[in-house]
Amino acid sequence: MFEAKVKAEVLKELVDVLSTLVDETKINANKEGISVRAVDPAHVAMVDLSLERAAFESYNADDQELGLDLDKVKEVLRLAKTGDVIDLKYDEDKNKLILHVGNITRRMALVDTAGMSDTKVPNLNLPAKLTIRVEELRQGIRASENVSDHIALTVSPEGFAMQGEGDTDSVDLKLGKDLLDELESKEQVRSMFPLDYFANMIKAITTAPSVTMYLGNDYPVKIEFQIGGGKGKVKYLLAPRIESD
Amino acid sequence: MFEAKVKAEVLKELVDVLSTLVDETKINANKEGISVRAVDPAHVAMVDLSLERAAFESYNADDQELGLDLDKVKEVLRLAKTGDVIDLKYDEDKNKLILHVGNITRRMALVDTAGMSDTKVPNLNLPAKLTIRVEELRQGIRASENVSDHIALTVSPEGFAMQGEGDTDSVDLKLGKDLLDELESKEQVRSMFPLDYFANMIKAITTAPSVTMYLGNDYPVKIEFQIGGGKGKVKYLLAPRIESD
Amino acid sequence: MFEAKVKAEVLKELVDVLSTLVDETKINANKEGISVRAVDPAHVAMVDLSLERAAFESYNADDQELGLDLDKVKEVLRLAKTGDVIDLKYDEDKNKLILHVGNITRRMALVDTAGMSDTKVPNLNLPAKLTIRVEELRQGIRASENVSDHIALTVSPEGFAMQGEGDTDSVDLKLGKDLLDELESKEQVRSMFPLDYFANMIKAITTAPSVTMYLGNDYPVKIEFQIGGGKGKVKYLLAPRIESD
Repeated sequence: MFEAKVKAEVLKELVDVLSTLVDETKINANKEGISVRAVDPAHVAMVDLSLERAAFESYNADDQELGLDLDKVKEVLRLAKTGDVIDLKYDEDKNKLILHVGNITRRMALVDTAGMSDTKVPNLNLPAKLTIRVEELRQGIRASENVSDHIALTVSPEGFAMQGEGDTDSVDLKLGKDLLDELESKEQVRSMFPLDYFANMIKAITTAPSVTMYLGNDYPVKIEFQIGGGKGKVKYLLAPRIESD
Repeated sequence: MFEAKVKAEVLKELVDVLSTLVDETKINANKEGISVRAVDPAHVAMVDLSLERAAFESYNADDQELGLDLDKVKEVLRLAKTGDVIDLKYDEDKNKLILHVGNITRRMALVDTAGMSDTKVPNLNLPAKLTIRVEELRQGIRASENVSDHIALTVSPEGFAMQGEGDTDSVDLKLGKDLLDELESKEQVRSMFPLDYFANMIKAITTAPSVTMYLGNDYPVKIEFQIGGGKGKVKYLLAPRIESD
Repeated sequence: MFEAKVKAEVLKELVDVLSTLVDETKINANKEGISVRAVDPAHVAMVDLSLERAAFESYNADDQELGLDLDKVKEVLRLAKTGDVIDLKYDEDKNKLILHVGNITRRMALVDTAGMSDTKVPNLNLPAKLTIRVEELRQGIRASENVSDHIALTVSPEGFAMQGEGDTDSVDLKLGKDLLDELESKEQVRSMFPLDYFANMIKAITTAPSVTMYLGNDYPVKIEFQIGGGKGKVKYLLAPRIESD
């Protein structure tokens, strides 16, 4: 059983985040809310997302798996006006999700979840932690995209840096600790990442003003931020690009 | 003789409607105003448009045929700012239409109307009638375009429905009679239509808040709406797509 | 030595003007400010631009040549928000220009200026002069682009005209002397110009409300306008297209 009403903007946050990695995904619903784990086809990045029942206008579900084609959900979201609530109901007999928005009903075939394995979130020990404004990251990404296809993220007790190094030009975003919302770092750590993955994820953040990042030396980065007006959470892991020189 | 001044937005309404069906068209002018009948090349849809002399800022014409290239008129409309009045004058000697907007003069060659036959509007007996908000139709079109290339329109004493049926997904727009401005229907009627024609027509309606539709069983739909601030009228006919099953 | 701070919008004016003609250019800096002369590859148009030190927020330079890739400067300008000041500093050791905007640093390789010859501005005796609003020229360009790829500019004691002549259609922009800010013309002069060059230049004017034009008979047009809030000046020369008939 699955019946829920949710603000279009909350559903959009969820879809925007997931569709940076996958086209189809398995939603796990239970009495407490929904959760999703998705890994991109190249196994470079993972997202672990949860949305409490309190993030919904109304919510009523037993343990239930729903295989969603994210492009179809985007089609329905494009019908919603600001403030619209989308009504979702699982039709068990026909294995369809029935979505209502305004006077429109969309009956959506679900995707077979049999082949979607459950993803385990690795346990990482990342020594540095910082909280940073999304807008600053976006500026750093925009600037770096002009010179390189990868970036180095550095955290030290002094602050945070994002660096893109091209053949002739380079770009630096530097934020001293006074420009960060939070900084925990005993020594300098540095890892390199593919810029497109990092950029797609940060660009998918539509409401959270800041994110918390965890970093190590040539280790994955973990990015955490809130969705659903604080009633949901995203953890995003991105594998490092190991420098060979 | 043909001399007229018309608000750019009124001329735009006329051009937007006609250009859903044809690139070139014959305008018939007389003392009372102008009228146009156009049929698309595939003979699937027809428009019958009239604009009274009162829709113009000034108007002075004898019986006159003008063959217009609608793309050229759109070029002139793009020069107009909000509130601009376009000055039109037929130059008989050179067979050109002279258009003024701001400090610009465009001398436009007219299209030969000799080969443009006069279109007869068929007399149809359509038992159901309803008046519906354009915005609702637009939502239904947007939603249907995601799943199908044709739609079924149904009218019954209970209300109106637009349905798109895809291979796996379906879309319904349902409006009970309380959500319609007007409904006259003794029994249920239903016809199917090509979605692209229907969509292009409804999207071309820029000022009328609602349209009146006449429907039958596997019969054309007639759509009527006002242009020119109520001083003009469009009747649009679209042939049904007969279901073969 | 070259160190300067400049409002992003002022740097953008300079880049917009120059990039209508060239991709790379040589900036000449000295104690008084900067100047640039650029000729397009086909030698049809020339720009002579200067920006006083007073146009900068701060300025400190010896005689210095800087070879700029304009696309790279545009990349940095896209990072700037309204009101942002861009910090420029020449790193002599590495032959790079270091640009700061917000918390971003871009280290930009400079272009070799050895092959860039110094351009001489020809001395022209152009008998007619007028000052005209840029918005009127833009309208005339927009209208002319629909019918032709060249335009005739005419000045007479009565006023100014821009004419585009196509195979079937023609466009005129006519401004009597009362619609011009200034007019000096003893007799009628007329020259034809390639519309794309003229259009690109006029479209690159982002802040000046009007330009001063100098015209002759089958002679180049000289266009002058201000940049940098009146602390800079652009002179633009465009060769005529000689009519052969």
